[in-house]
Amino acid sequence: MLGKGEFGRIRDLLAPLTGRGAFDLEDDAGVLSGKPGHEIVVTTDTIVAGVHFFNGEPPEDVAAKLLRVNLSDLAAMGTNPICYTLNWSLPSSYNDEWVTSFCAGLKVQQEIFGIHLLGGDSTSTPGPACFTATLFGLVPRGQILRRAGSKLGETIFVSGTIGDGALGLLAAQGMLADLDKVLVQNLIRRYRIPEPRIRLGLALRGRASAAADISDGLLADIGHLTEIAGLGAEIKMSEIPLSYGARNALAENSELWQVIVGGGDDYELVFTGESDLADSLFNTGVNVTAIGKITAEPRVRLVGANGTVMQVNKEGYCHS
Amino acid sequence: MLGKGEFGRIRDLLAPLTGRGAFDLEDDAGVLSGKPGHEIVVTTDTIVAGVHFFNGEPPEDVAAKLLRVNLSDLAAMGTNPICYTLNWSLPSSYNDEWVTSFCAGLKVQQEIFGIHLLGGDSTSTPGPACFTATLFGLVPRGQILRRAGSKLGETIFVSGTIGDGALGLLAAQGMLADLDKVLVQNLIRRYRIPEPRIRLGLALRGRASAAADISDGLLADIGHLTEIAGLGAEIKMSEIPLSYGARNALAENSELWQVIVGGGDDYELVFTGESDLADSLFNTGVNVTAIGKITAEPRVRLVGANGTVMQVNKEGYCHS
Repeated sequence: MLGKGEFGRIRDLLAPLTGRGAFDLEDDAGVLSGKPGHEIVVTTDTIVAGVHFFNGEPPEDVAAKLLRVNLSDLAAMGTNPICYTLNWSLPSSYNDEWVTSFCAGLKVQQEIFGIHLLGGDSTSTPGPACFTATLFGLVPRGQILRRAGSKLGETIFVSGTIGDGALGLLAAQGMLADLDKVLVQNLIRRYRIPEPRIRLGLALRGRASAAADISDGLLADIGHLTEIAGLGAEIKMSEIPLSYGARNALAENSELWQVIVGGGDDYELVFTGESDLADSLFNTGVNVTAIGKITAEPRVRLVGANGTVMQVNKEGYCHS
Repeated sequence: MLGKGEFGRIRDLLAPLTGRGAFDLEDDAGVLSGKPGHEIVVTTDTIVAGVHFFNGEPPEDVAAKLLRVNLSDLAAMGTNPICYTLNWSLPSSYNDEWVTSFCAGLKVQQEIFGIHLLGGDSTSTPGPACFTATLFGLVPRGQILRRAGSKLGETIFVSGTIGDGALGLLAAQGMLADLDKVLVQNLIRRYRIPEPRIRLGLALRGRASAAADISDGLLADIGHLTEIAGLGAEIKMSEIPLSYGARNALAENSELWQVIVGGGDDYELVFTGESDLADSLFNTGVNVTAIGKITAEPRVRLVGANGTVMQVNKEGYCHS
């Protein structure tokens, strides 16, 4: 192999990213330290070039997305992130320059989220680049937030704004050409670089009855919560918080509602609890909005401003 | 997607493989339970179709290889395996039938090694199938076996027989055509289904000064041990334990020595310690053979029967 080779990349680019338990990557395994009274939470996500990120995407953004989609899962579980393992399978076109920028991107994210590299594996592939990160975090025993737990009559909340991820994907594909260029760039940014709601997740421990991050789409992820609980949900379309970009996109094309409630990649949190739950979350740095209620009927109903109902089933959503 | 779809596969094929901490895969994360006085060891390996296993390989064998290469890393660290996470990126040609057989293969390995599934991620890919497993195990605090620790004058041991993995790869590629068909099948089997030396690894705790599994090749992996220690090694070619198949292959072509000491995929353990170390390992179910000594000169020397020396450097090995 030209360039640094596998061992050179490990020594020069990956070993400097390590911390406690990684043995400077001298071994094929690392040691995870627990904490008395805490549980270790594990989550893992894979991203594939051309599927989860664009070929030609800046390597720093690929690194950010890889870690952030995993951090979002930890946020949804009320977990404090600690460290991660990294597996990459790279085609030969991902040269030392690409990998160096990717590792610089990892370093930036590590500093933002206070995490370090514990270990991993690097292989070659004749196919598209494929990255897996497995994230580890700590949560006080018995306080983990789960998808199961929503109760009848509880309020459903979301963080931030909804639909920007899916609209950002459309925008990146050139399908929101009528929209202002700055708004387009902001939406694309939301798709590329999710914002894991770690602080909010920590604040939800002991307060929310259930939580998930929105990766499959708002209605689908609410459906995951209610299905486990054997319950349903009624969501008011008018209450769903939208960004300025999303509102402008909707003004151009009202059909985009389907993308907003059905698309994925928002990485906001959806959670349930008492109606005054939001009052205790004001210092988490993110807006929280009540968008509906947990209902007895086991399906997710989306009620429009004019009283129309869009109904959701397991395969997605459809007009009823 | 035709067939079960992602959620159907998770519910029908993966959820039945789970155990403690996996929440029946209802959540995007699992909980790893520690044990008082123990550390959690983490290792991860990725295998790619066409690189680490053959396209068309039986799915049960792919499952076995995926878990066993990781279990071999835990064995080398003296670690008791507990559970694992699984990420797969599959092209559409890997249909429900393939995945069902793959999961049946996982189940078989889980029962052999006493492990369960904790969580994972499934994605699609336009490229070759790519699997990542991340294995977790427990080791009493401070007793982990590491690559670092070999001391001057210590004896170097290996388990089992050496070279069968690399010869098996050659055999599978049809390059050992003169060899008896049964021997060819045995060698291919060694390449496809490694035998992680878990019991031996547990027995080495507190006894061996350093250990590694042989995945890069005997001389390369000895080089990793000695380089970390700032020392070298002298290996006697005549002492390297060979299988009946390897001896027959060598009889046909003496150049295969280079494959035996340079090739990878044996997944035997190489370790260092006092010269009588092997005496305490007789009940581990695997032969242990002394093949050389740790030396002061920082390089790995392979001494042939006739006194010739093959010298090894970081890039591999070469005649000196």
